[in-house]
Amino acid sequence: MTQNIYDNPEFFAGYSRLGRSVEGLDGAAEWPMLRAMLPRMDGLRVVDLGCGFGWFCRWAVEQGADQVVGVDVSENMLARARAATSRPNVTYIQADLEQFDLPAAGFELAYSSLALHYIEHLERFLATIRQSLVPDGQLIFSVEHPIYTAPSNPGWVVDAKGAKTWPIDGYLIEGARRTDWLTRGVIKRHRTIAHYLNALIRNGFSINRIEEWGPDDSQIAARPELADELQRPPFLLVSATATT
Amino acid sequence: MTQNIYDNPEFFAGYSRLGRSVEGLDGAAEWPMLRAMLPRMDGLRVVDLGCGFGWFCRWAVEQGADQVVGVDVSENMLARARAATSRPNVTYIQADLEQFDLPAAGFELAYSSLALHYIEHLERFLATIRQSLVPDGQLIFSVEHPIYTAPSNPGWVVDAKGAKTWPIDGYLIEGARRTDWLTRGVIKRHRTIAHYLNALIRNGFSINRIEEWGPDDSQIAARPELADELQRPPFLLVSATATT
Repeated sequence: MTQNIYDNPEFFAGYSRLGRSVEGLDGAAEWPMLRAMLPRMDGLRVVDLGCGFGWFCRWAVEQGADQVVGVDVSENMLARARAATSRPNVTYIQADLEQFDLPAAGFELAYSSLALHYIEHLERFLATIRQSLVPDGQLIFSVEHPIYTAPSNPGWVVDAKGAKTWPIDGYLIEGARRTDWLTRGVIKRHRTIAHYLNALIRNGFSINRIEEWGPDDSQIAARPELADELQRPPFLLVSATATT
Repeated sequence: MTQNIYDNPEFFAGYSRLGRSVEGLDGAAEWPMLRAMLPRMDGLRVVDLGCGFGWFCRWAVEQGADQVVGVDVSENMLARARAATSRPNVTYIQADLEQFDLPAAGFELAYSSLALHYIEHLERFLATIRQSLVPDGQLIFSVEHPIYTAPSNPGWVVDAKGAKTWPIDGYLIEGARRTDWLTRGVIKRHRTIAHYLNALIRNGFSINRIEEWGPDDSQIAARPELADELQRPPFLLVSATATT
């Protein structure tokens, strides 16, 4: 089973204070780019893997999705998600993303935001998603970028002039990375971009588009500190279609 | 026009002494991985973009390719390539990869090794290749990895214990990078992985496989210094198919 860090009290308290937890989708700087990769929601059956507080699930039904299923391992998060909506076409399911099941051909869209870098068994996950999608169904997800997850000691190095670099090591050495984020000992799984994309293709997806997220000019104007993210992308966004 | 650094005497002299120039394909550490991505050559019409000394062109005909066209901007390199074979089914053409043309549907395979990071106009290049391929024809190429080309000051940083990191900056800031490699002022074009892959998809290709090259165990056993390349991949390898 994946480490369920979200039910660690210290982590959960910290996570609950993040912009993306308080403000929802608009508090996530990568959301506009991810949203632009999504199809129209009208009439879709949608599953959200790692749905957290359910912000995306609620957005999807507001945009016209027919049925939305949110899956998450964290009871704490699901409790808040359930409390936040009374829509009958939103369902929340508690499950570990390493070993969950989904109905065959039950969805037109599978979505996942910043969850897959916690998963150890990506291959099983993708096979589960693939069989749950109708032909031409889409999987659209974000993960921490491999450039971001690779280093043994992730962080900026600032030179005497204030210029920032992001030192990489271990990029081709995949596996667990133990970091201290919100609490000590958060375990993420580093894998390469090639690994993500080849696993998709191997499991019956074709790649539509990938994005290495960085802030646009208007985001930098509003929050100048975001300019640092141009030095190395924090997020990888992928759109793939289930091949027939 | 692209900088034709290969006809700079100092660069050419240095390049001519590299393992990949003296030993050919087997002198290039990424060749086994690239070769594994190639189809069988039997009966194929092949174009090699940036063919250099023609090592791949000769290999392709030896493997059974029907016709091989090598394209390169460097007269120095083409002179050696022409001198190295008398096969009538190998043709060498001098052209700038920014503005060359190819016959429509003339090839089953387009190949390019470590050339596209010199090109400024990738979109035009890919459109030219796409129309030159038969349906289901393949484009297989290597480039310097964007992690390798991004930094304003590329190089290893070695800490007091001897551990190496590769500091990245400017990854999301695409464009020219001026470096000193074999001679001063070599201009490469940095673009992101997303840029390469989305440009392929936009121009009528589907992605088959990508590889971020690093040495395997046997290569490290034979040349221990190659282990450094595990810290960050020097090469990106891509296989794509012309969609119908």
